[in-house]
Formats: sequence, structure tokens, C-alpha cells
Amino acid sequence: MSLVRVHNFSISLDGFGTGEGQSKDAHFGHAGDRLHEWMFATRFWQPDGSGGVDYVFAREHEPGIGAEIMGAGKFGHPGWHEDPEWKGAWGPNPPFHTPVFVLTHHTRPSIEMEGGTTFHFIDASPAEALETARAAANGKDVRIGGGPTVIRDFLAAGLIDHMHTVVVPILLGRGVRLWDGLEGLEKNYVIEATSSPSGVTHVTFTRTGAGTAST
Amino acid sequence: MSLVRVHNFSISLDGFGTGEGQSKDAHFGHAGDRLHEWMFATRFWQPDGSGGVDYVFAREHEPGIGAEIMGAGKFGHPGWHEDPEWKGAWGPNPPFHTPVFVLTHHTRPSIEMEGGTTFHFIDASPAEALETARAAANGKDVRIGGGPTVIRDFLAAGLIDHMHTVVVPILLGRGVRLWDGLEGLEKNYVIEATSSPSGVTHVTFTRTGAGTAST
Repeated sequence: MSLVRVHNFSISLDGFGTGEGQSKDAHFGHAGDRLHEWMFATRFWQPDGSGGVDYVFAREHEPGIGAEIMGAGKFGHPGWHEDPEWKGAWGPNPPFHTPVFVLTHHTRPSIEMEGGTTFHFIDASPAEALETARAAANGKDVRIGGGPTVIRDFLAAGLIDHMHTVVVPILLGRGVRLWDGLEGLEKNYVIEATSSPSGVTHVTFTRTGAGTAST
Repeated sequence: MSLVRVHNFSISLDGFGTGEGQSKDAHFGHAGDRLHEWMFATRFWQPDGSGGVDYVFAREHEPGIGAEIMGAGKFGHPGWHEDPEWKGAWGPNPPFHTPVFVLTHHTRPSIEMEGGTTFHFIDASPAEALETARAAANGKDVRIGGGPTVIRDFLAAGLIDHMHTVVVPILLGRGVRLWDGLEGLEKNYVIEATSSPSGVTHVTFTRTGAGTAST
């Protein structure tokens, strides 16, 4: 059985996965780039980047993934569905290289991008979306790409096998929280924390009995 | 100038410093002992305990402290002020061994305990309470003992020089949050995270230019 995985999902020390005030020019609202600077500084993002613990965690984003599911808020700013030309926030060659299923009430025809990414738009529950993504993933794993609301919904539905979150030492104060309504989640997972010299802490959740990720 | 310090303040991964449903038999509500098991397992708490990173952080609770300030919710369960015999949750010899200033709207005469702890009851703002505690601390540092609301109030007032929090890998889901309303707190502190083999992560805040703690 292919696994359902979350990678590189960054949150502030106070638990926000995105800031307040998301717009076309501020994909993460008032958080800006601050939740992801740890990743930009690694070889996962740039050739001259660091190769330590932040890098080895970051690169796990890719291997073995056959499809991604993302929320409408990751695909674009509030209101993107009113722009027929909107093709996501990543330019002509998005960094997914697989089918990507965008959860939205405003479905539209699929968009084929360069580099193997195709955006599909579906209005579905987490379990239904996962069934669709698994069929497209050809036996590989499915990544849940965020935002926080989508990850929370998949966690609440018991659908996540492996999750890598990154706690960044800033206090955003406002935005969308990851952890709301997940009391007792630790009972189903082995949780490990690994602090990095960069200041972030990698926290992994591995479902008890979920086996190991394919590579 | 003596410093204002927080030590061993444990929070869940979702940021709760105490659980819901605090009572005489459940000092931390539905959290039970889960926020503090990391500390009970060390030599700080028991002779046969561990002596590693959890221990060296835990023992910093004591040296150089001349007084503590705590909230009414740490001193006792909701309603303790209606019990004239209530002397705190720690037995005849509380583990403070200094003057302790309890912030409460229900003041009462001071209570002298064994081992050097005296409980004083004051109805005061954070700044006023600190002035009083500093005078009693004889040049030593003042510890802010919690709970989460009190620490948050002192942080918001800019009064904390050094803070040691411990993130425990559980999701409480409900209770009292530490971090609410503290956006941008990181600007005034050097923040370090140190993960422990026990599973907790020690997160320290050191105020820029606050000097070093006395010992």
C-alpha cells in the first residue's frame, strides 16, 4: 500500500502554518518567507546551500511521490478561481512533476504544465481525494502538500502515515493554525524531534505500524 | 540588576501550558502528569534519574533565585481562596525555599512554610509584583513560576530576561495556551532549540543584551 506523506511543512512556534492576509503578492500573508528560510538555505533549494540536517529532511519531499493533494489556498491567493488564467504560484514548470489534485469548490478543466505537473481540480472529501490521487500515483506515495487546514483535515480523518513538520522560532500571532482539534494525535504516531543548528526543529510523526516510506 | 527568569515551563506541541478541567485532584486538568514526566525522570527529581540534557536544564530552576511570582492558578485549584486552610499544592515543605508572591484578587495573610518558603498574596500588575518580588529577592533573580497566563502577561509587558520552555510531543487540544498575543516576540530574544533523546525539545529565550544569569 502506498503511503500518505507530509514533508517540509513549516509552522511558527505558536503553531501557525500560514500568516494572516494572504494575497497574490503574499502567499503566506504576513509570515512572508520567514517560515521557509531554513529550506531556502539548503542544497535542496540552491547549489551553494547547506548539506546538513535541514537538507536531508528537505530532500525527502521528492523520492517516491506519485501525486500531491493540495488545498485551494496553496494553489493560489483568495479569489484565484475568478481568474481564468491563474495557473498556480510556481511559474510554467512547478516543482511537483506529478499529478496535483487541488481541492476546491470551484472546479475547472485540468491544466498541464511543463515538467510533468498536471493540476486537476476536484471537489471531494479527504478520503475521496486520496482515492483519486492514489489511482493517479501508480503505486507510489501521495503527498499532502498543505495548507494547514488541509493537513489538519487529513490528520483528523486518520489518513496520514508520515508527517514532517518544521517548527520555526518565530511567533506569528495570527494566521491559520495546524494543530487545532487534534487532541491525542500522539497515540497513533511515534514522534521524534531533531533540533538543527539553523534554529528550527524537525518534528516527525510516523504512524505506528505504517511500515517504511518507499524510495 | 537581577534577572527575571522562567524555568522548566512545559507546553504541549499545540502550545498548552495546562489542560482543561483543573481541580484539586488534577492540578493540570486533563493533561495530568504528561507535561512533566520528562522532569520526573531526571536526577533533578529523583536520585536514580537521568543526568543528561533534561537534567542540566531542569536544575537551572534553582541557582540564583531569590523570589518567585506565581499565578493563583498555580497556587491552587479554582476556588482555593474559599478554603482558609489551603496552603498550596506542595505539602508542608514546598520546593521554592524563597518568598513566593501569589497574584490573586483574593489576598490573605502571608503563610510561612517549612524550608524557607513564605507565601505572600498580592493583587498587583506584573510590573508592581516584580518590584515587590525584587525587593524581597535580596539582589538575586526573580523566577516567574507560571501558569501560562502569568508568563504570557510578563512576556507581553517585556519583563522576562530569560525563559526556558519545554515542548512535549503530545497534543492536548484544549486548556490554556502560552503563546497567544505574542506576535514578534522573537525580535527581542535569541531563541535556541535543543531536542533531547527523551523526546522533548528545550527552547530557551535569552533577551538581547540581558547579560548572563547569576549563579
